[in-house]
Amino acid sequence: MSDKILVFGHQKPDTDAIGSSYGFSYLSNHRPNGALNTEVVALGTPNEETQFVLDYFGVKAPRVVKSAKEEGVDTVILTDHNEFQQSISDIEDLTIYGVVDHHRVANFNTAAPLFMTVEPVGSASSIVYRKFLEANVEIPKEVAGLLLSGLISDTLLLKSPTTHVTDHKVAKELAEIAGVNLEEYGLAMLKAGTNLSTKTAEELIDIDAKTFELNGSNVRIAQVNTVDIPEVLERLSDIKAAINASMTANGYDDFVFMITDIVNSNSEIIALGAHPEKSEAAFNFTLADDHAFLAGAVSRKKQVVPQLTESFNK
Amino acid sequence: MSDKILVFGHQKPDTDAIGSSYGFSYLSNHRPNGALNTEVVALGTPNEETQFVLDYFGVKAPRVVKSAKEEGVDTVILTDHNEFQQSISDIEDLTIYGVVDHHRVANFNTAAPLFMTVEPVGSASSIVYRKFLEANVEIPKEVAGLLLSGLISDTLLLKSPTTHVTDHKVAKELAEIAGVNLEEYGLAMLKAGTNLSTKTAEELIDIDAKTFELNGSNVRIAQVNTVDIPEVLERLSDIKAAINASMTANGYDDFVFMITDIVNSNSEIIALGAHPEKSEAAFNFTLADDHAFLAGAVSRKKQVVPQLTESFNK
Repeated sequence: MSDKILVFGHQKPDTDAIGSSYGFSYLSNHRPNGALNTEVVALGTPNEETQFVLDYFGVKAPRVVKSAKEEGVDTVILTDHNEFQQSISDIEDLTIYGVVDHHRVANFNTAAPLFMTVEPVGSASSIVYRKFLEANVEIPKEVAGLLLSGLISDTLLLKSPTTHVTDHKVAKELAEIAGVNLEEYGLAMLKAGTNLSTKTAEELIDIDAKTFELNGSNVRIAQVNTVDIPEVLERLSDIKAAINASMTANGYDDFVFMITDIVNSNSEIIALGAHPEKSEAAFNFTLADDHAFLAGAVSRKKQVVPQLTESFNK
Repeated sequence: MSDKILVFGHQKPDTDAIGSSYGFSYLSNHRPNGALNTEVVALGTPNEETQFVLDYFGVKAPRVVKSAKEEGVDTVILTDHNEFQQSISDIEDLTIYGVVDHHRVANFNTAAPLFMTVEPVGSASSIVYRKFLEANVEIPKEVAGLLLSGLISDTLLLKSPTTHVTDHKVAKELAEIAGVNLEEYGLAMLKAGTNLSTKTAEELIDIDAKTFELNGSNVRIAQVNTVDIPEVLERLSDIKAAINASMTANGYDDFVFMITDIVNSNSEIIALGAHPEKSEAAFNFTLADDHAFLAGAVSRKKQVVPQLTESFNK
């Protein structure tokens, strides 16, 4: 085994997973005291939004690895995740040197003390930025660009309620170092991730989908980002057919699909399955042809899951 | 439920548990941005060493609580521990706002993102000190005294191999703020925790004892600190009788008892049970009358458990 440490974000990497791991690997290798020998890698290929970011700042996508042991490495640093089922395949056999994350902590344990920083902020990239400041290490332009992009992606340009009060200053400072206009760059980047026209209805409902058990019901909640809700709704019948097929195939009782307008910060909700009235009660709207408009909603975690949980529990 | 947050260290609190929780509660209440309403409490009464520290700096022992809900509180901050079995009785029903710790992470999970800092350093108090510096909050003399004492206690005055390279500077700076001579104060404090004469042999072998499963054997490893090993060995036959009774009563296969000289950093080892030859192989010594001298050993975690683990696995 070498002394090399692999740094990576979660499986199915998004821009914050790639940005935070890229930035933290750079920082770890450039600390004035105690620099490490790390390499940033990824557990999957970049999505379209992340590829836009990498191209914009001239950064090569981290190479994809499946197992650390196969790389001759037994020590790793995790960013933007901690739960083992979201991590590298052989995580249970490795030494976890460090974690930088902004999620809940679950299904995670170590045999020895480690460096672990978790903060309830908008992105893991925000925390990595603060660590640059603490270590007094200069941030190269492209690193600032990737960190900024991670924050923009996770907070939908600081509009999601997951945005922390400290994230606005972080975004402003990173945009300055990266040499971009925050609003213009942010919108262009988010739009790059909303090219839904090349995707089938089956792909749309699986881009970002999670299953929740709500009071005994198996509820699938999926989300896509767009700049044009009506354009997506033109494919309503195809999408509904895909949802119904997915429910049958996977045993979901309900399926809630968020089509989120990232420019105006609203969502259209499609609700199918055994309990559409639970969505109507949760969001205080009336479904017509199985869908309805939900003003101001962009965050599944904060604006959909808790409301549905409460509604299903009644 | 009030908006109050309880801050506490682990069950059977030692000086680092009390010191780190006291310091972190103070810091949390005095942050220039985002001050919290916290109260430091404890999950047990101070031991003799900690009582010496509290008396020295004129601090009242944190009141002992058994359950947060009984206090009308549902949010907590943990210091110097994270494993639920070491925490407050109703930990699974509470919101964990933050964690400051220097142990492995295990049997720990949260429902939501939190503030969590874990570092592999000599004490949780070392981390709390760094957080004061980051927040630019002035450290009162008695808070510095408690943090310094936590570090001295956990590292046996910076002599244990668990001491981190950064801990020496932390100790020097805290001693200056606390207005004490590091060596003189540290030794006096450690000695205050070594008054073994008032304790029965049964109490001695249970002051700081943990059970390990080593290759199928149930091995109890206990430790006491002293400034006079011969004085403890005068009670050898009583101690051996207590150990044998404890093995029978609790089903331990082996019992290893470390009598650690905190001034000269050595230990006398008493080994009883089914596999004394495993201790002899682990420590490369020969037991006479069931005990032997182990030069340079002060840390169970680093200098006894790994060596015994390897020996039992052969």
